[in-house]
Amino acid sequence: MSYHLPKEPRYAVAGATGAVGREFLALFEERALPCASMKLLASSRSAGKGMRFRGAELTVEELTEDSFADVDVAFFSCGGDQSRRFAEAATSRGCLVVDNSSAFRMDPQVPLIVPEVNARDMVHEDGSLRSLLIANPNCSTIILCVALAPIQETYGLERVLVSTYQAASGTGEKGMRALIHDSREALAQPQIHDRGLLDFSEGLDECAPVFGHPLAFNLIPQIDVFGQDGRTREEQKMVQETRKIFALPDLLMEATCVRVPVLRSHAESVSIETSRAVDLAEVQCLLASSPGLQIVDDPGERRYPMPSLSSGIDPVLVGRLRLSGVFSRGLSFFLSGDQLLKGAALNGFQIVETLARGS
Amino acid sequence: MSYHLPKEPRYAVAGATGAVGREFLALFEERALPCASMKLLASSRSAGKGMRFRGAELTVEELTEDSFADVDVAFFSCGGDQSRRFAEAATSRGCLVVDNSSAFRMDPQVPLIVPEVNARDMVHEDGSLRSLLIANPNCSTIILCVALAPIQETYGLERVLVSTYQAASGTGEKGMRALIHDSREALAQPQIHDRGLLDFSEGLDECAPVFGHPLAFNLIPQIDVFGQDGRTREEQKMVQETRKIFALPDLLMEATCVRVPVLRSHAESVSIETSRAVDLAEVQCLLASSPGLQIVDDPGERRYPMPSLSSGIDPVLVGRLRLSGVFSRGLSFFLSGDQLLKGAALNGFQIVETLARGS
Repeated sequence: MSYHLPKEPRYAVAGATGAVGREFLALFEERALPCASMKLLASSRSAGKGMRFRGAELTVEELTEDSFADVDVAFFSCGGDQSRRFAEAATSRGCLVVDNSSAFRMDPQVPLIVPEVNARDMVHEDGSLRSLLIANPNCSTIILCVALAPIQETYGLERVLVSTYQAASGTGEKGMRALIHDSREALAQPQIHDRGLLDFSEGLDECAPVFGHPLAFNLIPQIDVFGQDGRTREEQKMVQETRKIFALPDLLMEATCVRVPVLRSHAESVSIETSRAVDLAEVQCLLASSPGLQIVDDPGERRYPMPSLSSGIDPVLVGRLRLSGVFSRGLSFFLSGDQLLKGAALNGFQIVETLARGS
Repeated sequence: MSYHLPKEPRYAVAGATGAVGREFLALFEERALPCASMKLLASSRSAGKGMRFRGAELTVEELTEDSFADVDVAFFSCGGDQSRRFAEAATSRGCLVVDNSSAFRMDPQVPLIVPEVNARDMVHEDGSLRSLLIANPNCSTIILCVALAPIQETYGLERVLVSTYQAASGTGEKGMRALIHDSREALAQPQIHDRGLLDFSEGLDECAPVFGHPLAFNLIPQIDVFGQDGRTREEQKMVQETRKIFALPDLLMEATCVRVPVLRSHAESVSIETSRAVDLAEVQCLLASSPGLQIVDDPGERRYPMPSLSSGIDPVLVGRLRLSGVFSRGLSFFLSGDQLLKGAALNGFQIVETLARGS
């Protein structure tokens, strides 16, 4: 396969009206990626809607198999079912697809890419593209792997334990709306002032259809459906995708994924065992000089990663770095990253930027 | 020392107007502990205030060294400074003190008690009391130890890794009030609907003095001050107190403590390595039959521990039980417990109940 991205590609965003699609479009406003044309695609429900793009008013079109004849690069963020249905229609017409769904991530033929970590997996040794379909990893996986990459390279990963604090935006626009709505309802309950006891069965009814339970002032230790092994698909994804991204199929890893009442930044508490001994000052330098990361680690000044700092910005924030209390070689840290940006739209955008630089 | 709790003890609550003090008093309404009299103590600021207790209207008195002459049992929940100042005034007059602060927890002379785990540490072999001062552990420590106890007894603990999700009530009444206030302010920001981007520097000003940062729709990976080793005192407490409660001074343990925008239930994601191999069905039976615990673990029915289920009830909820993905012998689970009840007032109340039964 020999493929070169045109100098001024024609783009499409499938799922343009969703939370991730809108962030993807916003990135074109902020970053200098050449773009000959932009086609906005969505379900028939959103077709006909107008959206601004680089100073022009575009009309959203219905996503169909014929959408991709005049498109060089399509970003898909409209769910696994739509990706499975339409991705091949795009690639068979020579259109490069960056797919944000989980549909193809574990397909051995499909590169699963975090540009800072494994951009080389997109191409053969001769520089030609391995696949016209490239998968964007799970949001929690991306922000974790950006932080793990320099550690893996320098010290080697033996065991990874991660507990997540995942924002409502992981379920898209409707998740954020539901959390806002139900938080208002909760605050309107008079008994919230009576010993902090909310009635979670009363009026908090917009989050349950999205998250399975009330989320306002609550935590839900389930993201996606459960597998046979007592783990959720989100937890399985984090483990399987991390192994694939690092080409470490036997990496020992455990994830516990928890939804929290935060709008659009995920956070993660991470403990790792490394193959070689870790020097804390060295690892701080290492992470500080790694792409996609920003060290926020000054406890005395109360500086550490938080959603309030990471929301709306590109880098993954890493802090609370300390030598492990349980492994003789290892460390623990905390990270926070914007779920809609590096966790989704930005990573996909960077995949295209990387290919554009290489073409 | 020979000590017997009177059949109908005279009680005092120091810090009666605080969130924990009020829960302690509420427990007297719900449980049949004999009580000859109740004295409500607080700072001079709250002295003179009226509070209901078992059908009577009591007046809050100022806490002084002379408060304990006619008291048999005092529950202290008014901060470490007040405990250090007044606990000895009480014990020197023969008054049993159950102290909810961290002031004496690591004092080798002071038993640190979770009744389900180490009630025996309160007494000598002849049944006499070891100390008139008994410490109530840290809230996150208590709910963790209730779950770890049967596992330690049957399988032995080698390594414990815990990431917490801690409610606003950990800072008392003012923490809950601040979260409610700032959540309202956040929801009033028009831009909350614009891509879920809050302005955390604008108007969210009641949480910062309490938590160090905005908490509404945010996460704060700092609880209490930082020590030299990059760990917060809360994290150090969890490790040191767990070691003391289980008499395992060398237990390998790492805690990451995070404040979340929840009102009064803490949650914890726990991964442990055990000395002996764990059988999952066996550990479920074991935990189900252990005091203070309730298994909520039916993933297919979306049943697992959450603050919405654990708030306002006595047991610590445990679920998401699964064999470890990182240790050949071990398991992972999630728990949730009411911070003001088992995490504070209820545990103290049970310490007194245990002594009352034994006297």
